[in-house]
Amino acid sequence: MNPDILNERQKATFDIEKLTNILNGGPEKTKRRREIESMVLNDPDFKEQDPNFLSRSERYDQAVRKSAQMILKLREYGIADPEEIYCYKSCVHPGRPEPLDLHLGMFLPTLLNQATPEQMDRFFMPAWNLEIIGTYAQTEMGHGTHLRGLETTATYDPTSEEFVLNSPTVSSIKWWPGGLGKTSNHAIVLAQLYTQGSCHGLHAFIVPIRDMNTHVPLPGIVVGDIGPKFGFSEVDNGFLKLDHVRIPRDNMLMKYAKVDPDGTYFKPPSDKLTYGTMVFIRSMIVGESARALAKSSTIAIRYSVVRHQSEIRPGEPEPQILDYQTQQYKLFPVLAMAYAFTFVGHYMNQTYHRITGDIHQGDFSELPELHALSAGLKAFTTWAANSAIEVCRMSCGGHGYSRSSALPDIYVDFTPTCTYEGENTVMMLQTARYLMKSYRQARAGQQLHGIVSYLNEAEHQRIQPQLIAAKSTGIDFNDLSSLVELYKLRAAILVELAAKSIQKELQHKKSQEDAWNNSAIDLVRASDAHCHYVVVKLFADKLGEIDAAPLHSVLLTLARLYALHGMSNNSGDFLQAGLLEGSQVIEVTSHIKELLSELRPNAVALVDAFDFHDRMLNSILGRYDGNVYENLFEWARRSPLNSTEVHESYHKYLKPLRSKL
Amino acid sequence: MNPDILNERQKATFDIEKLTNILNGGPEKTKRRREIESMVLNDPDFKEQDPNFLSRSERYDQAVRKSAQMILKLREYGIADPEEIYCYKSCVHPGRPEPLDLHLGMFLPTLLNQATPEQMDRFFMPAWNLEIIGTYAQTEMGHGTHLRGLETTATYDPTSEEFVLNSPTVSSIKWWPGGLGKTSNHAIVLAQLYTQGSCHGLHAFIVPIRDMNTHVPLPGIVVGDIGPKFGFSEVDNGFLKLDHVRIPRDNMLMKYAKVDPDGTYFKPPSDKLTYGTMVFIRSMIVGESARALAKSSTIAIRYSVVRHQSEIRPGEPEPQILDYQTQQYKLFPVLAMAYAFTFVGHYMNQTYHRITGDIHQGDFSELPELHALSAGLKAFTTWAANSAIEVCRMSCGGHGYSRSSALPDIYVDFTPTCTYEGENTVMMLQTARYLMKSYRQARAGQQLHGIVSYLNEAEHQRIQPQLIAAKSTGIDFNDLSSLVELYKLRAAILVELAAKSIQKELQHKKSQEDAWNNSAIDLVRASDAHCHYVVVKLFADKLGEIDAAPLHSVLLTLARLYALHGMSNNSGDFLQAGLLEGSQVIEVTSHIKELLSELRPNAVALVDAFDFHDRMLNSILGRYDGNVYENLFEWARRSPLNSTEVHESYHKYLKPLRSKL
Repeated sequence: MNPDILNERQKATFDIEKLTNILNGGPEKTKRRREIESMVLNDPDFKEQDPNFLSRSERYDQAVRKSAQMILKLREYGIADPEEIYCYKSCVHPGRPEPLDLHLGMFLPTLLNQATPEQMDRFFMPAWNLEIIGTYAQTEMGHGTHLRGLETTATYDPTSEEFVLNSPTVSSIKWWPGGLGKTSNHAIVLAQLYTQGSCHGLHAFIVPIRDMNTHVPLPGIVVGDIGPKFGFSEVDNGFLKLDHVRIPRDNMLMKYAKVDPDGTYFKPPSDKLTYGTMVFIRSMIVGESARALAKSSTIAIRYSVVRHQSEIRPGEPEPQILDYQTQQYKLFPVLAMAYAFTFVGHYMNQTYHRITGDIHQGDFSELPELHALSAGLKAFTTWAANSAIEVCRMSCGGHGYSRSSALPDIYVDFTPTCTYEGENTVMMLQTARYLMKSYRQARAGQQLHGIVSYLNEAEHQRIQPQLIAAKSTGIDFNDLSSLVELYKLRAAILVELAAKSIQKELQHKKSQEDAWNNSAIDLVRASDAHCHYVVVKLFADKLGEIDAAPLHSVLLTLARLYALHGMSNNSGDFLQAGLLEGSQVIEVTSHIKELLSELRPNAVALVDAFDFHDRMLNSILGRYDGNVYENLFEWARRSPLNSTEVHESYHKYLKPLRSKL
Repeated sequence: MNPDILNERQKATFDIEKLTNILNGGPEKTKRRREIESMVLNDPDFKEQDPNFLSRSERYDQAVRKSAQMILKLREYGIADPEEIYCYKSCVHPGRPEPLDLHLGMFLPTLLNQATPEQMDRFFMPAWNLEIIGTYAQTEMGHGTHLRGLETTATYDPTSEEFVLNSPTVSSIKWWPGGLGKTSNHAIVLAQLYTQGSCHGLHAFIVPIRDMNTHVPLPGIVVGDIGPKFGFSEVDNGFLKLDHVRIPRDNMLMKYAKVDPDGTYFKPPSDKLTYGTMVFIRSMIVGESARALAKSSTIAIRYSVVRHQSEIRPGEPEPQILDYQTQQYKLFPVLAMAYAFTFVGHYMNQTYHRITGDIHQGDFSELPELHALSAGLKAFTTWAANSAIEVCRMSCGGHGYSRSSALPDIYVDFTPTCTYEGENTVMMLQTARYLMKSYRQARAGQQLHGIVSYLNEAEHQRIQPQLIAAKSTGIDFNDLSSLVELYKLRAAILVELAAKSIQKELQHKKSQEDAWNNSAIDLVRASDAHCHYVVVKLFADKLGEIDAAPLHSVLLTLARLYALHGMSNNSGDFLQAGLLEGSQVIEVTSHIKELLSELRPNAVALVDAFDFHDRMLNSILGRYDGNVYENLFEWARRSPLNSTEVHESYHKYLKPLRSKL
């Protein structure tokens, strides 16, 4: 063990294990997670070569091998709970997406949710036993987030009782689905349903795409890998071009919508049926943001206590770089954010499960707010995490740039969350639509409930500038609830500003649609402020649940840092609204500096609490034992370019050059 | 040609070729650049396979092949001007660093600058003829920016008249130098010089590392590649461990510092000798920032006029995504920044060349300010460009994530600029040190000259809050010089705040060093504001040189957007200082919206003016003809994973699974 990192651990003021339990959702969950981890990590069948040293094809090959093993072992150990499967999978492919992700995470669940009993009989068990390997083919080359724009057609032919699936344009080629390129022999294809001369919008169809025995693409199917990407190197994201491919009528998923043999169409009972799944997936993504931040801050903070550099006081030994204020200012807000987003993820997951019962009984009353909030929070957390990962990487100097740090991989595998499951700007505008509607309702005298209740008229009285100005002088920056209040007022004011921008455009004779587009900058800002308020509020709420004094104290420090750092970064909003005065911004900075010093002795303990096994981090800079440099050298020597002392290019190109010059 | 992009080009209000000439520094430069480009691009010897489809070793191999060809052709065509060599190289390896970069860019120039005539005879021609292939080995595993911390030793042994080069610790292993791993047979090694029992600091030594015939590492040398990185896949960044390696005394570069045969040391005449080179390299990096932004904005803006998505007005065709205000708000500020940084790069380069003559005559008077400014501008521009590249990538939706967009590669090859040649935070603090010194001088009544003259006492009178408050109501946001003035005042105020923070710490009995460290956040902010002011000012100065009215008009729009966007993003600073009032921040947003609309018709013309050949961009989304989708499909089909219809992993792992489940 590196003596510096050992010394750090001795300085912790709280019980790390207790904090780990809070992060995991209870001691039993911590225990079970560790059981699953050791099951996988001790299993020789899951041994792997460092993917950094493999070609793309070898990485895919290794991932398929491990995924196949995983399916066998899950069956062998009887692991069937979705959360446990997810945990097991995360250990088999540490932090990396894999070729069967969509089979397990989309194909099987979609069958469960949308297949008729007859379809379950035909497809589910073969899929469960991996005879059928499926994916979910929604996104096309020309359209992603805007689903109505998808162009693939499914035209019903009553004479043969078949659907004809077709890709009418180049841009309609299915593009991006994971596992589509090489792995799957079936796809659930989302297509515009045409029957009896009318289009009825998007519906889901089960389409066989490869021969069940030879795995060769079926007639009318052009399928393949979309080529190398920034990350996701283990995944065969694919394309699928359908040339009038015929499937039987009963390959349309018909639990809700139906097409009769004669072609008569019956629409599904509710259009909110898919909201629940979207909320669930977005709450998962918020959790992914938290996990990416936790990993990145673990790596950067551990390395920052091992690395000594330069000097603060002349003549003294080189200090640990975590003793530089600028380094603390980079990393501790990321650490605070990791905790904040973890708690937001918990909240969304719990809320989703709480109202799932209501949804199944046809009560959708709480869903619209949660749906709107989940869109914004997905965007807010992924954008913030995306930048923060890079802050962590660059805080490690040159070595952060080496693949051995794991930080480049964390970034490239995380960054698609800003785009998939709804492009972030579009998501922010979705939340804004809800906020604008709520604002109008409140102005019309309706009493709002839930998180947007701050838009109620009575609340609104409190945010008149003159009141604020009086108020701002009395802010207690040590009091978290005061900070929550400031974030709430900021959100209320930015929602109002966006609403007024729309009104102003309308007064200039703009159409509703142009007024919306010409206010889009303000709308995104309003959503951002709304989400920021929710995050600060949920962090504060969480503190109410923590009893142990030392733990409460360190988490309060993190929560205050999260809130004050956000105020400093967005000081323009608070000043503009009269919520702060100029001199108070300087006070905010002073408080931040104090909080950085307070956190310093607990920094390593706070990342240790995330409890990442070294093999899950796969980072030399982030090693638990802190023995960075010797392992960096050892890793480099194993690199494929060092398998020979002299690269063949020397003899081929460089040496022959001499005679020519 | 895609009709949308054709239509965009017809809307341009200015002469693109004239703007290209301004960007290139004159029509002759444009002409010569195009000549060199077509020389390379039409040369069958430089044909290459898409590196995205190659393994690391194949990429290195291809790069060495092309670099060897390049050396031959440069000789054949008699291209010897450094700027033209750089241009030629940039075409041979479009946008990609390559294995001979350090041989050409560091090894040869260091010989020219620091070798004695005798050393020139021994080393220069062999290196020119690529018998000697060299690199510049400065950075170690444990130290980069902090040069005094480097641990490699060169101990003089007068008995044999040799230096003994040694890596005393793991962290002292040379790490990162480009071309060191596999390509070079010599290295200029920076080491702490010990002679007659004293250490004299860092000096440069020529160390043979591989056998001139077999290329096998010499005794005492452990050398190799440091393993895969985020980018730089063509470059064999290497490690070098020296075990008491002996070199003759006259392998120390002795043009300035000297060691006599008996071991007597003579120090160099000036410690500012290396400043000039640093300024030059940093001005090159500012140019790289501009180029990365120009490429990224070209790709994103062209794609944004080809891509149609969603709807603004119901029932109408899907609009070009560049018609969304949010998309303009993402991309046009990046475009403005590309222009701003191009002009900053020109300024630095010109200033460097202007004072080079002075330097050679021993007049270093202007160098300190330029040196301090170049540190900050290097950090300011690379950080800004780094984030902006990712904004461009994510503005392209999912396809930005594909390697075919080129945006991932632009990012990974650019992002090291934030770390190398001086880590950015350290660079900002270097500039801050100059600002603090200037501030103290001004307070002491000295009259400052140059860019920091705004810190003079007389200027200072103007920034008293009460004066500002009166002033701020009369700001003309259409007047660029008013905006420059605001940036200047902001810089003055933030410099003062940082100085006051240090004073406060000192009053609390902190040492100078701790006071500095405890004010580091404020110091970085002050430097940032200083650099931001310089950039806005140089953009405004550049406009003074533009005659043609249509060109002046569009560049003024860009300059105003650059300035106002920065004010909006940093509104907290301007409000806190009383330079703006709350209502004026809303005004700033309105002006920004107007500028976005103004720029919209010229957007494609403004990126066309960067004049990137399609083969230099190597981006399917950024194609000049706009034919994106069909080419994306064609590219994907060529991907190696599609060389067989069925990947072998199906037969190895997936099919056998069936019998086991």
